Amino acid sequence: MDYHARITSMRQSQIFTKTRREAPSDEVAKNSQLLIRAGFIQKMTAGVYSFLPLGLKVLNKIEKIIREEMNAIGGQELRLAALQEKALWEKTNRWDDAVVDNWFKTTLKNGNEMGLGFTHEEPLTSLMRDHIRSFRDLPVYAYQFQTKFRNETRAKSGILRGREFLMKDLYSFSRDEKEHDEFYEKSKIAYKNVFNRAGIGEKTYITFASGGSFSKYSHEFQMLTEAGEDIIYYNKEKGVAVNKEVYTDEVLAEMGLKKSDMTEGKAVEVGNIFSLGTKFSEPLELFYKNEEGKNIPVIMGSYGIGVPRLMGSIVEALGDDNGIVWPTEVSPFAVHIVAMKTEGAVIEAAEKLYKELTDIGIEVLLDDRDARAGEKFGDADLIGIPLRITIGEKSIAEGKYEFNDRIAQKTELFDKDQLMAYIGKHNV
Amino acid sequence: MDYHARITSMRQSQIFTKTRREAPSDEVAKNSQLLIRAGFIQKMTAGVYSFLPLGLKVLNKIEKIIREEMNAIGGQELRLAALQEKALWEKTNRWDDAVVDNWFKTTLKNGNEMGLGFTHEEPLTSLMRDHIRSFRDLPVYAYQFQTKFRNETRAKSGILRGREFLMKDLYSFSRDEKEHDEFYEKSKIAYKNVFNRAGIGEKTYITFASGGSFSKYSHEFQMLTEAGEDIIYYNKEKGVAVNKEVYTDEVLAEMGLKKSDMTEGKAVEVGNIFSLGTKFSEPLELFYKNEEGKNIPVIMGSYGIGVPRLMGSIVEALGDDNGIVWPTEVSPFAVHIVAMKTEGAVIEAAEKLYKELTDIGIEVLLDDRDARAGEKFGDADLIGIPLRITIGEKSIAEGKYEFNDRIAQKTELFDKDQLMAYIGKHNV
Repeated sequence: MDYHARITSMRQSQIFTKTRREAPSDEVAKNSQLLIRAGFIQKMTAGVYSFLPLGLKVLNKIEKIIREEMNAIGGQELRLAALQEKALWEKTNRWDDAVVDNWFKTTLKNGNEMGLGFTHEEPLTSLMRDHIRSFRDLPVYAYQFQTKFRNETRAKSGILRGREFLMKDLYSFSRDEKEHDEFYEKSKIAYKNVFNRAGIGEKTYITFASGGSFSKYSHEFQMLTEAGEDIIYYNKEKGVAVNKEVYTDEVLAEMGLKKSDMTEGKAVEVGNIFSLGTKFSEPLELFYKNEEGKNIPVIMGSYGIGVPRLMGSIVEALGDDNGIVWPTEVSPFAVHIVAMKTEGAVIEAAEKLYKELTDIGIEVLLDDRDARAGEKFGDADLIGIPLRITIGEKSIAEGKYEFNDRIAQKTELFDKDQLMAYIGKHNV
Repeated sequence: MDYHARITSMRQSQIFTKTRREAPSDEVAKNSQLLIRAGFIQKMTAGVYSFLPLGLKVLNKIEKIIREEMNAIGGQELRLAALQEKALWEKTNRWDDAVVDNWFKTTLKNGNEMGLGFTHEEPLTSLMRDHIRSFRDLPVYAYQFQTKFRNETRAKSGILRGREFLMKDLYSFSRDEKEHDEFYEKSKIAYKNVFNRAGIGEKTYITFASGGSFSKYSHEFQMLTEAGEDIIYYNKEKGVAVNKEVYTDEVLAEMGLKKSDMTEGKAVEVGNIFSLGTKFSEPLELFYKNEEGKNIPVIMGSYGIGVPRLMGSIVEALGDDNGIVWPTEVSPFAVHIVAMKTEGAVIEAAEKLYKELTDIGIEVLLDDRDARAGEKFGDADLIGIPLRITIGEKSIAEGKYEFNDRIAQKTELFDKDQLMAYIGKHNV
């Protein structure tokens, strides 16, 4: 039995979630307002969201894009734990709340304190001591999708900044700076691929940022949006930007840029890549033996993408007054069929097309609900599936399909061949 | 680009994990000893394990089986949050540590206490208030794969009992007892399918157990193993069992069983299903309007499977003195090719077969490491892929493949046609 084929398409009457006219009054961010109204997510408490079936589908599609791009540059997937031992984090001086101010901490029955991972350099570096011993064992690129916990003081940005959220974090382990730099450059391309496939490539700038205590600079991927908490200065032509925190004449000169060519904008950081040097490998004693048998600390890097943040950024960037607009590759379904009646020739034609498209591997949401036309179209706009086909008595009589492209904002009457050609061209 | 096809098969030289001759001395359970030695998991602290690439592959395969079986009975997947609000759990009197003794609790910056979900009846019941209003909205079957946190006093059973572990939990919402019972019976079949596909069907008994404070009985799925913490009395012929906690003449009579037909055994609970009645819907006010417009509390059930526990149980049940033995459908790879040399005709033949099998969709692990034969065979037995093909100079000269079935414990010389037929028959 091919179980999977049975669930890629769905009937709207079967999905338990309901759309809402209004978001909860305490929800101020556009991304969470729209996602809650459309039934993709639900707020549990400030900064903590559940993902409903439609929302989980989008999350999984973003995860799939990231996974494919990480595998393409040699990433090996694993999954670390959330619970963290105090002793491990004391070695790098990151246990103390005065040093890291967003820990969630808890206690074992025996009284031992435990933390909930806000990042995972320490446990992965420690784990690698069992697997990296010689220069022959390097390089290693390991990543995971895992829940991070961050005790944010304020949580008003919807799923752009959660207290608990899924993150892809990759860590690189290299022999030397040269090997590290080669991977670091590859990771930039992989990240660009991710944001292009997620539909926000044009709005996203690779951005010079502070390296923190680790290195001179890091690179952020900043997506322009009024919802962003960061200020960047970007150059559209060159596709690069500088974070306000390092926006100095010195940095501009290094990048070959002039102040007069830069535009100020608000942006959200949808990804970041960091050179870590030996900041973690030295205190955690991750050394390898080189060709001469000498112990050398491993050179590390870290590479993060918050999955819900990316999902929320897509909604912020592309959503309009009527609702969400999903780019093709992250849309919960490729096609939304809206049946104007629940009986007779209309529902028959809708069911037939639903089956035809599903059989050739296209994911369809079929609105087979007994509801008014206005409610159906309103919900379709809100849910934001990019291609919509309306089936009513008039279009059946004409032998045509009323076709609506949510991204291109156009409506056309297609015959069957035109319809299939269009869908084929716009489906992934 | 078909990214996925690129990662289903792997070269052993590329996997960063190493096997070990010995498990850590504080690791006393067979499942975690073997899984650590084979490089599937790593212990972070007592009861907390990370899943390395091979281990994550197995976890994902078990997850896929469960997902398919839950979808087949109408389950809709979502993902709730780990962080839990105190006020919600006070409504059902499950916040107090005197009532629930395995909470992990933590604190927000503003001083508010939060819990880490050990189960999810409360948040899901509360969430459903926004989606279930009328009899037309029922039934609903919603499930998730999510990390549970349980503050266990002792954690000595490897991945059979973790302080943090992935769980599939499904919750059913029904109009009345009749609708509930129908789904409850369906869930039994789905659970049997899961354990059959996971390779432990023959050792797993549907077991009458206490209903706790919710109902008279619940049903556990208990797998016989000396590593189990439960005592059951089972009847092999009828495939049923009774947990010691309810092993009374009354229960036996209800089941049509006699004490003389029952055998005592130790077992691990690999799954459970519970009728909850209105225990949660009443205090959390999940009501629906029936045909007469009257408010009726929703009838609920809960259905759990711990994913790492199932993985560990497979290792306990099937592992032998040489290592793990994976059943076909949960094995990290379908076929293990062991190349006896890293150069010349041997590695060429191995690479050729690796490509041929991969191209027809079979997942292969190729041992292309520069290592001694004894080490290669020892590691292959330890890792436990069910089908092994050894390629050396002798077998090439004879035009044969040395074939080893880890489950059937037999070695044969196959020609190419025999080999492909055997693999085709034993692959999923």
